[in-house]
This record gives sequence, structure tokens and C-alpha cells, in this order.
Amino acid sequence: MTQLTERLEQLKTKMLEMSSLVESGIQCSISAAVQRDQDAAEAVFKYETRINLIDLEIDRLVVDLLALHQPMAIDLRFVIAALKINTNLERMGDLSVNIAHSARSLIDGSTDTPMIDIPLIAGLVESMVRKRMDAFIQSDVDLARNVLSTDAAVDTLRTICYHQLISFMEKDPTSIKQALNLLDVTRYLERLGDHATNIAEIVLFYVKGIEIRHSGSTSQH
Amino acid sequence: MTQLTERLEQLKTKMLEMSSLVESGIQCSISAAVQRDQDAAEAVFKYETRINLIDLEIDRLVVDLLALHQPMAIDLRFVIAALKINTNLERMGDLSVNIAHSARSLIDGSTDTPMIDIPLIAGLVESMVRKRMDAFIQSDVDLARNVLSTDAAVDTLRTICYHQLISFMEKDPTSIKQALNLLDVTRYLERLGDHATNIAEIVLFYVKGIEIRHSGSTSQH
Repeated sequence: MTQLTERLEQLKTKMLEMSSLVESGIQCSISAAVQRDQDAAEAVFKYETRINLIDLEIDRLVVDLLALHQPMAIDLRFVIAALKINTNLERMGDLSVNIAHSARSLIDGSTDTPMIDIPLIAGLVESMVRKRMDAFIQSDVDLARNVLSTDAAVDTLRTICYHQLISFMEKDPTSIKQALNLLDVTRYLERLGDHATNIAEIVLFYVKGIEIRHSGSTSQH
Repeated sequence: MTQLTERLEQLKTKMLEMSSLVESGIQCSISAAVQRDQDAAEAVFKYETRINLIDLEIDRLVVDLLALHQPMAIDLRFVIAALKINTNLERMGDLSVNIAHSARSLIDGSTDTPMIDIPLIAGLVESMVRKRMDAFIQSDVDLARNVLSTDAAVDTLRTICYHQLISFMEKDPTSIKQALNLLDVTRYLERLGDHATNIAEIVLFYVKGIEIRHSGSTSQH
């Protein structure tokens, strides 16, 4: 095995480790918010610490790889994809922390606000998060495209939730704080979906050479 | 001038063009939201189209640079910094579009909700956005650090706005929709501040070798 191949394998392993930690963090944050589980919220903060360390390791590995081993063609595309995917994963870690904070506020809050369609959105986002890393590691175009179509469903459900929560607040102004916490959760879930979409797009572009970014079908709001 | 130097100059020029478009988009989106200016909101969408094109051009330029010219040491750090900064700039363009959408809803809305401290936050974010690109181009550490301290002020003001808007909604439930639009604007402004912070951190790390990411002082919520 050449030194370059060895370093690329090392990068792949680190990316899988990062991805798995981010996935666990997201799962815990969703349990924290949906089941109002305090312990799950605390677990998210522990994952975040490890995610931030690996984020820096991956960045350093990429710089070393480019500086010392000068990868070409498909290897170079893989390295750049890894750098870009890592940025998205790190942000997904931040979002799981945001959800954990909202979950804490939900748990501390006094009123009992209904979860409406939030568990449904959470389920879709969890499936997107699982698939996008598989798409990267296996260079699987169909899986990447599947992530993109799920994102559209998440956006639609989030809009429905938004209107449900507004009419809930208008009917019962004492529930405003809790409803805002739920709105935050739906927003963070939607952004997780956006990052999973970004990763799928990066896979399609860098690994397969298919350009679909900024095509209008996957814009972020 | 070597081919590498020429390509690096080309990259710097494109980055400045991208940055200037993003800055203009942000200024228009702030005018749209703060002064309820419909024309400014429409201008944001035009900037976005050009931003997306240059985003792709920069990505391609970076891949070509790495593949064909194999930059080393400080040049390599510059190219990686450019790639990472470009990701942040593109997201800032998306956020200006988000603000423009909220501005449209504010303009269409019926009630007259007060702007509270939003113009103040907007002013701070505009100053951060200006300084961070100067910091990159001039490799100016003090300017980059200045961006980081302004971000803390933005976060504090945003929390104050959040509580003001909640009590506003509780007192007058008919204003909930408009208050949520304003909450969205403050959130997008805060995220613009976060991206300016990211860029300042990238400048410090890649250009000057100072690592302050994940040090706890600039976490994102």
C-alpha cells in the first residue's frame, strides 16, 4: 500500500468515525426533544466535544494529504469532498446541540404543548442522515438522490408544523414560549435535512461529476 | 508571473467579487427588512443568482489549482482557506435571501410591529461582514479578532430581542405572525454573524496558524 493510499484510508476511517458520532448526537437530540428525555440531552453535549476534536483532526489530515502526497484525479476529488462534507458534519453536530438546548427548555417549561408532526419530521431527517454517509462511502448515486427527494418532504412538513404552531399560539398565548421551542426544533431538523442534502450534492458532484447544486430544485430557506 | 501565481491572483479576484456581491445582498436584505423596502428585497434575489454562479466558478478554480499547479505551504493554506471561506459566503448569500423572504412577509403583514433592537443588530452584522473580508485579503489578525468580539455583542442583543418579542406576542396575540417574521430576521442576522466569525477563524487558522475554533469562546447556537 502506498503512503497516499494509506493516508486516504485513514481519512475515510476518520470520516466514518465523525459521521457515526454526528449520527448518534442527532439521535440523542431527537429523543431528548420528542420524548423529553433529559439524559439524552446531556449525552448530546458529550458527543459534541468528541465531534469538535475529530473535526480538527480531519482538517489537519486533509492539509497534510494535499501538501505531502499531492493526490490527483479521483483521489483529489475525494479529498476535497471529505473537506466539504466535514464542514457539513461539524455543523450538524452544532445543530444537535441546538436541539438539545431546545429540549432542555421544553422539559423545564410548564405547559404541555402537543408535538404535532415533529416526530414524523424527525424520522425523515434520521433516515436522511443515515443514507447520506452511506452514499458517500459507497459512492451511491441512487442513495444520494433519495436524500434529495426526502428533503422536499421535510420542508413541506415543516411548513405545516409552522402554521399549526402559529394557530396554537394565537388560541393560547400562555403556550407561546413552549411553541417557540418546538418551532426551533422543527427549524433545526429542517437545517439538518439541508446539510444531509448538501452532503448528497457533494457526493454527486465530486464523486460522480454530476452538478445539481444551484439548479433551483434544492434551494435552502 | 508563474502560472501558479496567476491562478492564485485569479482566485483572489473571484473571492473579492463573491464577497462584494454577498455584502451587497446582505445590505439590500437589511434595507428590505428594516425599512420595509420591497425593491431592496427584489434586488437580493438578483444578487443570489450571480452569487451561485461565482460559487461554482470558485470551486472549479480551486480543484484546477490543486490538480494542475500543486501549491505548497502558504499557497496551499490560502487555497484551502478560500474553499472554506467560499462555503461560508455562499451560505451568507442564502441567508440574505431568507431575510428578503421575511421582509416580504413583513411588508405584506397587516399589523405594525416595532423593530425594537433589530436595526442595531443589523448595523453590527454589517460591520462584521465588511471587516471579515478585509481580514482575509490583508491577512489582518487584529481585524479578524475584532469580528469575533462583535459576534458576542450580536448574540447578546439577539437574546434581548427574543424576550422582547415573546412578551410582545403574549400581550397582543394578533401580532404573532409579524413578531415571528421579526424573530426570523434576528435569527438570520445572528447566523450571518456566525458565518463572519467562521471566516475570521479560518483567516486566523489558515493564514496565521492560530487555532481558536472549538475553544469554547465562539460556539454557535
